[in-house]
Amino acid sequence: MKHILKSQQFSRQEIEKLFADTDHIRGLYEDPEKKKGLMTSLQGKTMFAIFYEPSSRTRFSFCSAAANLGMIPIWTEDAGKFSSAVKGETLEDSIHAFCQYDPSVIVLRHSEVGAAEKAAKIVDQFGYETSIINAGDGKGQHPTQALLDLYTIKREIGRLDDITVVVGGDLANGRTVRSLVYLLSKFERIQFVFLSPDNLKMGDDIINHLKEHDIKFTETENMKEALRVADIIYWTRVQTERGSINDTVDLTIGVEEMYLVKSGARLMHPLPRVGEIKTEIDHDSRSAYFRQIKNGKFTRMALLEDVCR
Amino acid sequence: MKHILKSQQFSRQEIEKLFADTDHIRGLYEDPEKKKGLMTSLQGKTMFAIFYEPSSRTRFSFCSAAANLGMIPIWTEDAGKFSSAVKGETLEDSIHAFCQYDPSVIVLRHSEVGAAEKAAKIVDQFGYETSIINAGDGKGQHPTQALLDLYTIKREIGRLDDITVVVGGDLANGRTVRSLVYLLSKFERIQFVFLSPDNLKMGDDIINHLKEHDIKFTETENMKEALRVADIIYWTRVQTERGSINDTVDLTIGVEEMYLVKSGARLMHPLPRVGEIKTEIDHDSRSAYFRQIKNGKFTRMALLEDVCR
Amino acid sequence: MKHILKSQQFSRQEIEKLFADTDHIRGLYEDPEKKKGLMTSLQGKTMFAIFYEPSSRTRFSFCSAAANLGMIPIWTEDAGKFSSAVKGETLEDSIHAFCQYDPSVIVLRHSEVGAAEKAAKIVDQFGYETSIINAGDGKGQHPTQALLDLYTIKREIGRLDDITVVVGGDLANGRTVRSLVYLLSKFERIQFVFLSPDNLKMGDDIINHLKEHDIKFTETENMKEALRVADIIYWTRVQTERGSINDTVDLTIGVEEMYLVKSGARLMHPLPRVGEIKTEIDHDSRSAYFRQIKNGKFTRMALLEDVCR
Repeated sequence: MKHILKSQQFSRQEIEKLFADTDHIRGLYEDPEKKKGLMTSLQGKTMFAIFYEPSSRTRFSFCSAAANLGMIPIWTEDAGKFSSAVKGETLEDSIHAFCQYDPSVIVLRHSEVGAAEKAAKIVDQFGYETSIINAGDGKGQHPTQALLDLYTIKREIGRLDDITVVVGGDLANGRTVRSLVYLLSKFERIQFVFLSPDNLKMGDDIINHLKEHDIKFTETENMKEALRVADIIYWTRVQTERGSINDTVDLTIGVEEMYLVKSGARLMHPLPRVGEIKTEIDHDSRSAYFRQIKNGKFTRMALLEDVCR
Repeated sequence: MKHILKSQQFSRQEIEKLFADTDHIRGLYEDPEKKKGLMTSLQGKTMFAIFYEPSSRTRFSFCSAAANLGMIPIWTEDAGKFSSAVKGETLEDSIHAFCQYDPSVIVLRHSEVGAAEKAAKIVDQFGYETSIINAGDGKGQHPTQALLDLYTIKREIGRLDDITVVVGGDLANGRTVRSLVYLLSKFERIQFVFLSPDNLKMGDDIINHLKEHDIKFTETENMKEALRVADIIYWTRVQTERGSINDTVDLTIGVEEMYLVKSGARLMHPLPRVGEIKTEIDHDSRSAYFRQIKNGKFTRMALLEDVCR
Repeated sequence: MKHILKSQQFSRQEIEKLFADTDHIRGLYEDPEKKKGLMTSLQGKTMFAIFYEPSSRTRFSFCSAAANLGMIPIWTEDAGKFSSAVKGETLEDSIHAFCQYDPSVIVLRHSEVGAAEKAAKIVDQFGYETSIINAGDGKGQHPTQALLDLYTIKREIGRLDDITVVVGGDLANGRTVRSLVYLLSKFERIQFVFLSPDNLKMGDDIINHLKEHDIKFTETENMKEALRVADIIYWTRVQTERGSINDTVDLTIGVEEMYLVKSGARLMHPLPRVGEIKTEIDHDSRSAYFRQIKNGKFTRMALLEDVCR
């Protein structure tokens, strides 16, 4: 695999291979003896994190992953303000220029849908060895987030088939949610329950994708009912900064709501949360949202190992 | 010691131990042979510098200290703008999330009093191994600055007891000054002379602390008299950005004022200065303000060694 | 050589020595066996990149160069906003303070002409071992850019004497162009053709420098004629952000214009471009502008090796 651009590029086999690699790396990391070898495995290689939109969490995740493999991370926190983009340079020229410094990988975050694909195209056109990893392109994709979500499901409930997934919150704007749905639809007997206020429903592109692939889904505004049937509850924030409003459905999950949830189920959230999950359930063993972040580092380490070798 | 949160947490014994460690590290650093070992002593460990308020000097001090021990520093220059805080995430959640990447230490700068304590609380509540170091929490504390100040006094005049300390400038707003007074009051026969315009006098909390602990102090507006008696002159900038105004007392120290100062005394300043110390005395051997910064790196190396092992 | 402050400081011999070093380092870098040794040659040393004006490209070039030699790069992307400069600290004090952390080199970018010289002066006055490299001081100089340009000429056409150089675009504001002209005038039988709209002509200082040193030059607005005679075409962007306007002469180079250019000639540009070179000629082997950037990393590695040893 050269570039990581979108969730759809991964076949089921590739996903399973990636997760086995992730488990392997995690095993090495957690073994004091073996950790040393792991931490020099990509020594001498460089990772550039070019963030046109600030996102310190994603950046720290990638930079930690790189550093834990011995790579040197070099970044810009806000390329939109700090780079030649200010002077009117195209993204293609910027990427073309950065490739001259010979980074093994460029992790790109951009506000524009398709930015990572543009970047990959210029890399390939000129034959550079640099890999592009899409770390979010506006309302487009954030494939490493989707992969870490999927890895979390696998790790938490032990399987990726036969799952009822309740996806709730701002489904209209959730890039994360959309990528996850694409990825999960590669597996068997997945059922989706989409829970959102009427004005924040899942977009037609996803709905059509599910119909085409004959994947079961329902749409509801009844949270209690949804929580009862879920194996995985994937919760999201209402993105008020993108104009989303929710004044119709209460989507808050706390101790009381967790009584409805199966003992073997898990609650996930890409974070940040702004009240839709109460901190009172952070210690509940079914709350997997912080473990999700931890899984992100290991998944990204596996991806870096894959594209940088 | 797990976290470094406030000056008061250190006992006299702990301070003396820390300064011995600092001297030891300094010795290793300055010996070309031994430096190599020092520079790999925390190899493989990661330091996060999360600065909600920009402060490149403090950040470079910590990052240099970390790098000189072989740690990998990863930072954000302005987390207030570049992180999930923008989306309304609580500090607790942000710290909780950053801990998932397994940094050995998070160096936190924040505009809000108590931020570092909040951070430490969430770390402890969930049992993470990450240490929190407070690198300034608004008008609250900046304990590593206070420690480097104290270390400078020890190094420059050879003792921490029997000292007359003249503290001058913006005493109402100087976080540094307040932390230093707390720390020094753990030692014997310290006398303070507080020199400031009437509107920028030391706050009641410190005054009461001194009274309770029976520590001698006087307040004055007479600089000449104060300079004559000082063993340590600790000078500060009037913080106009916080609304401080000084139009009553001239607090400028230059060649002329230094004639009043004892030959064995020392002039300190946390810097930046904006005119209250003239550059004409930078070469005076009693001017210790740049050596203070150098001491800061070594003190922080000792603290990192302590919390990250 | 202690500091790198301006193009004029280099003698012809020093330039030739630097380019031999650059070729040598490049050879090591491109040899998988020898690369390892190169990448640890400055291990344990620290580079500070203090950028008062953001410029992610120059910063990444220096940081990559440093990292590829085993140095640890620590930077600020926008010291004007993130440092003590906000509180009114002088540049001299800031540099004086940063030196206390013992960086082997400070790479300084500043908006003010003469900033790097000021920095070097304070370093020398107090006897620090830190080197200063000027990475651009406003309308002043950007010597490492000039050196990489010269190295590119040498590498692309094999010589630095007997060259006709067509310099086109915004000659009034192009710091890069001015530095290059200074450097090239140290070589034999150089002829310049300056091509610009009347309002953006080369400044008198350069014109006088050429007259004094008896170097041939012509000024023209006829692009076609100029392209035909060129061995090197050095193209630049009209700096509209500095108020430059060009509404008289078409300075766009595309496939059609390249028909006029000699087969052994080369087209260079410091980038970013904003339309004055069409992407349709990026694959033309005479287009050297991206190779220029690559050469920049190697030139800077050679400079770092030189000043940090």
